[in-house]
Amino acid sequence: MFNFDFYNPTRILFGKDRLEEIDKYVPVAATVLITYGGGSAKRSGLIGKVREILGSRKVIEFGGIEPNPRYETLMKAVEIVRSENIDFILAVGGGSVIDGTKFITLASFYNGDARDLLKYGFMPIPFDVVGKVVPFGTVLTLPATGSEMNSGAVVSYEHGKFPVMSELAFPVFSILDPVITFTLPEIQVANGIVDAFVHTTEQYITYPVDGRVQDRMAEGLLQTLIEIGETTISAPENYNARANHVWSATLALNGIIGTGVPQDWATHMIGHELTALFGIDHGQTLAIVLPALLEVRREQKRDKILQYAERVWHIESGNDNEKVDLAIRKTREFFESLGIKTHLSQYGVGAEKIPVIIEQLKAHGLTALSETQDITLDVSQKILEKAM
Amino acid sequence: MFNFDFYNPTRILFGKDRLEEIDKYVPVAATVLITYGGGSAKRSGLIGKVREILGSRKVIEFGGIEPNPRYETLMKAVEIVRSENIDFILAVGGGSVIDGTKFITLASFYNGDARDLLKYGFMPIPFDVVGKVVPFGTVLTLPATGSEMNSGAVVSYEHGKFPVMSELAFPVFSILDPVITFTLPEIQVANGIVDAFVHTTEQYITYPVDGRVQDRMAEGLLQTLIEIGETTISAPENYNARANHVWSATLALNGIIGTGVPQDWATHMIGHELTALFGIDHGQTLAIVLPALLEVRREQKRDKILQYAERVWHIESGNDNEKVDLAIRKTREFFESLGIKTHLSQYGVGAEKIPVIIEQLKAHGLTALSETQDITLDVSQKILEKAM
Repeated sequence: MFNFDFYNPTRILFGKDRLEEIDKYVPVAATVLITYGGGSAKRSGLIGKVREILGSRKVIEFGGIEPNPRYETLMKAVEIVRSENIDFILAVGGGSVIDGTKFITLASFYNGDARDLLKYGFMPIPFDVVGKVVPFGTVLTLPATGSEMNSGAVVSYEHGKFPVMSELAFPVFSILDPVITFTLPEIQVANGIVDAFVHTTEQYITYPVDGRVQDRMAEGLLQTLIEIGETTISAPENYNARANHVWSATLALNGIIGTGVPQDWATHMIGHELTALFGIDHGQTLAIVLPALLEVRREQKRDKILQYAERVWHIESGNDNEKVDLAIRKTREFFESLGIKTHLSQYGVGAEKIPVIIEQLKAHGLTALSETQDITLDVSQKILEKAM
Repeated sequence: MFNFDFYNPTRILFGKDRLEEIDKYVPVAATVLITYGGGSAKRSGLIGKVREILGSRKVIEFGGIEPNPRYETLMKAVEIVRSENIDFILAVGGGSVIDGTKFITLASFYNGDARDLLKYGFMPIPFDVVGKVVPFGTVLTLPATGSEMNSGAVVSYEHGKFPVMSELAFPVFSILDPVITFTLPEIQVANGIVDAFVHTTEQYITYPVDGRVQDRMAEGLLQTLIEIGETTISAPENYNARANHVWSATLALNGIIGTGVPQDWATHMIGHELTALFGIDHGQTLAIVLPALLEVRREQKRDKILQYAERVWHIESGNDNEKVDLAIRKTREFFESLGIKTHLSQYGVGAEKIPVIIEQLKAHGLTALSETQDITLDVSQKILEKAM
């Protein structure tokens, strides 16, 4: 097992009817900025309920944070935080709204060109770069990214998606009420399952380091997502299925399963380019890339793919190659059973676009991906060819 | 799944050679109280190393915190905190030293008879009762109780062991270096395995509420402890086995596996009386009570014992009763394989003492234990009879 640090101070308030507790955790005298997305939180009445709970606090709303939140949009909110002396931000939304809010809070007191904050990648922004932030809480409306209980964000700028990490960006609290998510469109629920699934595989299907509990936890998340995936899509008001979806998605990226083990993230990095170039949903890009990546990386990842085959898919018979084949096929079939297509060509992107994607990976410095940093551009090309 | 809150701000620094980081997380100008136990941390040179890392900070030592730390001992440390204006406490030890330090920090600014703080049981002490505490960190020397990453303690007073819970009692940081634990006596390592195992079963072998990830995580912890138990005792310098033991023990009681599921704790409550009355090690008391409790509660816990039988012990054949029998037998055999006896009579306590134990349970108000609060004194008596 590798050495590791683990730190996660976010308070989770999970379950039915937790919204009222906003009043307990938002300072009484705060001026509050509510951030949200495309308007469904407004139309559903959720924002109204939140405002009611905030009572006499001064409240300003900032809507319109788009999926894959854009730097320019977020900087408009930063202006409001500065001009209105916002003391607390409440993000009401899914991963994009929460990620965007993290960037808003980090940029608000930064004394420079905030694009600087996009340059750190997976390295946490040093404390002295951003000394002070606006504390924020979240009301989660979409179980997927885990952003509600971590300190990372992804921000879009020009043709890139940039990871932003800072210990100052943990939500103070997150309200996870599965009932709030009952009205989500099917495709978003399905994308959320795939996102949580691939967050888990990124931290699990690498190489063995005898991180036994971490492996068991990852396998537990994958098994749970497989068990409840179809139900939570077809029966959105099945509370237990959705509750398991919500909590699995949070645990898949709150740091706990990644402690002391290698991490890959190549599927995400390649997927980000597909979103940035072609507007394919994040979850869909992961469903496209992961099966192809496992095919191409079957030798490097052999031990863990076999473990995944046996423990997650209960594949007992066949030789090692057959087990690996079947595990990859079952992964692909699982995504497809959720209604998510797994071939890039099915999204209208043909092989002729591969050089463009490779060019973007190169432009973003993503020339040595994966847990062993040996997914060069050539290997990424092979993965994209398999993904067609 | 039940509603739940999860909050755990302790920073974990896990792995080899982490001790130096004390310097980073203890305030530079702090006056530091180092708390420790019977002297092995002193004799091994660990306290000396810690003092060296603390450099020019003013340091006062308080040794002699006993296993099952006693109120009177801890209040002596409280006097020092007050008279010497201690700013930070560093607990160097196992669960008893860390539990004791939690009580010291809670009592230091309490304006009343500190025995009041023993009266809250499993209910967190309200914030306004203890407004301020001395922050503290830990250097863990014994993987067992999980105290290094939670906000609970158990304090002994007169003939009772009293749980104390407060969000103010989370360690700021905990250093978990498996190498520091290599020199532990075998019996303490074995007790530590049993303690982590039973912390897990208390939160798992109850009744099903469709907490799928929680169940999988609990099963992962139990399987890991079973896999590495004998190795980490017989080969104490096997780093990976010990690392898995250390991290499993922490995760078994940091709150994560107990989110949204019923919890029992009857084995602990009955075990506490055995320690208080007869001085039997905490881990040993759990190994005595758990198999007996599972026998007596086999009907109430049937669904989860069967799940435990199938998923943890891979018991596939036989009817349900046979599976339950075998799971209980394997549990007992596992404890015995670690060198821990599982019958009360083997510790020199005969059936004639049962009325005394029942009297103590009654005196401490423990008349309705378990996840369904239906372990009355009569049921406890049956459990103790089975435990002979």
